[in-house]
Amino acid sequence: MSDSISPPRPANDLFLRAARGETVERPPVWMMRQAGRYLPEYREVRAQVDFLTLCKTPELAAKVTIQPIDRLGVDAAILFADILLPLEAMGAELRFEKGDGPVFPSPIRHRDRIADLARPDVAGTLGYVFEALRTVRRELADRVPVLGFGGTPWTLASYLVEGGTSKQFTHLLGWSWEDPEGLKLLLDRLAEVSIDYLLGQIDAGAQGIQLFDSWGGLLDLERWRRISLPSILAIAEALGTRVPLIYYVQGGSHLLPGLAELPVQVLSVDWRTPLSEVRRIVGPKKVLQGNLDPAALLASPDEIERRTRALLADAAGGPHIANLGHGIFPNTPVEHARAFVDTVKGLRG
Amino acid sequence: MSDSISPPRPANDLFLRAARGETVERPPVWMMRQAGRYLPEYREVRAQVDFLTLCKTPELAAKVTIQPIDRLGVDAAILFADILLPLEAMGAELRFEKGDGPVFPSPIRHRDRIADLARPDVAGTLGYVFEALRTVRRELADRVPVLGFGGTPWTLASYLVEGGTSKQFTHLLGWSWEDPEGLKLLLDRLAEVSIDYLLGQIDAGAQGIQLFDSWGGLLDLERWRRISLPSILAIAEALGTRVPLIYYVQGGSHLLPGLAELPVQVLSVDWRTPLSEVRRIVGPKKVLQGNLDPAALLASPDEIERRTRALLADAAGGPHIANLGHGIFPNTPVEHARAFVDTVKGLRG
Repeated sequence: MSDSISPPRPANDLFLRAARGETVERPPVWMMRQAGRYLPEYREVRAQVDFLTLCKTPELAAKVTIQPIDRLGVDAAILFADILLPLEAMGAELRFEKGDGPVFPSPIRHRDRIADLARPDVAGTLGYVFEALRTVRRELADRVPVLGFGGTPWTLASYLVEGGTSKQFTHLLGWSWEDPEGLKLLLDRLAEVSIDYLLGQIDAGAQGIQLFDSWGGLLDLERWRRISLPSILAIAEALGTRVPLIYYVQGGSHLLPGLAELPVQVLSVDWRTPLSEVRRIVGPKKVLQGNLDPAALLASPDEIERRTRALLADAAGGPHIANLGHGIFPNTPVEHARAFVDTVKGLRG
Repeated sequence: MSDSISPPRPANDLFLRAARGETVERPPVWMMRQAGRYLPEYREVRAQVDFLTLCKTPELAAKVTIQPIDRLGVDAAILFADILLPLEAMGAELRFEKGDGPVFPSPIRHRDRIADLARPDVAGTLGYVFEALRTVRRELADRVPVLGFGGTPWTLASYLVEGGTSKQFTHLLGWSWEDPEGLKLLLDRLAEVSIDYLLGQIDAGAQGIQLFDSWGGLLDLERWRRISLPSILAIAEALGTRVPLIYYVQGGSHLLPGLAELPVQVLSVDWRTPLSEVRRIVGPKKVLQGNLDPAALLASPDEIERRTRALLADAAGGPHIANLGHGIFPNTPVEHARAFVDTVKGLRG
């Protein structure tokens, strides 16, 4: 009897087709930080290990990576990790302190300190990330594609130079004016390591790479082009077109005229500028990803459905991957996240 | 002999004429946070009293207000104070903690808590601000005009709701989606008190008012119009045209199309969008204020001069008040601030 053999679950390659700009039956949907604190099953894992241990334990990182696929049916997985891990691999001491976020106790603020940063053997120092990716690929068995990610050199530098998160980024911006050539040496070094790290992720099975430029918007467009863009271009060139590349910028509405030229398939933006306006500025060729205000997931599910429909309508002029404009808030009720995902998937109303 | 009688120092009303949109001989110049830590004479005063005591001691607040006029010859004074003082007057406990900035130990996060906030008699609770303004006016004797200031209700609320500064503004944004009518009650209350407070400043001699909307850029344009704008309009209407009104927004490049309609004479913006582009969007009638990156003052004086000349050229298409795009950094060398001011005044090169 054949009923004992379940048919293979059909592969969901909606995300990959949309990221290549193909016409798809509906926009794929996933959420930044979808493997995170808003999920009770994530909190259960985190109750047993600290954040860095979770990142460095492949079976646990894989487990929480897959949780939102099981729970919400999103169309892509993104590896549970942190953009700052390669900085630790370069020799920078990194701590995650409760409430304060990441801390580099010995920040790098001068070109003389750059030599302290190694170009690590990523297979040795970051092998746990690659192992987690292989585990996710194996366990998901093509149910959905798996994304890897990294920070842009400018955004990585912001943490390394400030010593953690910052309000004013006095040290980073100060360095950028005092000794721009010195800062370029740091960004070049960070780009080299990022290339090794991201290629390693692709080799381990990442089917797309998202570059997070959380603090790209600190620079005006002219300075972004001069200071940050070269290291982004180096990464994009090294990665080539093996997998779709996504560039995410937060607070970067003023950079949009420059993003049209970026050699990436997908632009991911925050909620500040409507996607129709983004498309008007960057042109029709880019796939746009985003951009529901993550705070909107604190409204009622009916309101979330209305706002999501409005987002889909606003983005309908071209290829679109539905997502939030920033990471999902830890205090988001799971049913609210579901209202967003289900609306995109046409499962509500 | 008449040489024992010194002639009255000629009044410098360049700022006031420029703020009214009149054609002036050169752009006036001042700097946000010009009374501050980068000045050794300010640090000397602060070594003796804490921040709140300095705000609340009129002769000391007046003293540090006047320091940058004496030291750098800027064209306007702005009272030394803090946007959060009226919240304390409303009954919210306010502390300034070293390194952490302002802290409200009992944040307001629900409409039920709004009744805890009084509508204070500003003459009684904030009389020290008005006294400081009267002292500055008397001591400056019209050498330069004196500005008062306050926060927009949205920006005041951001501190009161989050309990201090924030990275993600989870509570404020969450409230704005969960109970927008409740948040409106808070913003209305803050607008009422702001009106009393700012009218009090004008009565005490403030010759211009700057409204700081440091966190206005958290909202997209549609939500800024619906949530934040009504309380700004209430203030603008109540203040009328007795003195020039300046609206400052940080990280608000995406709001520019909405700022054209604001009933204020002067728009002050950060460094992210060039002033020529701002003017293209908001139209030729607004006086623009800004917008050198405060971090640029950490470059060499020659580079500061070049960037300042470029700023002046970029702004030359209409009325302009030279300023920074955000507050001056505490680690700015005084001679670098002077390079900026002197370049605008035509005293360099």
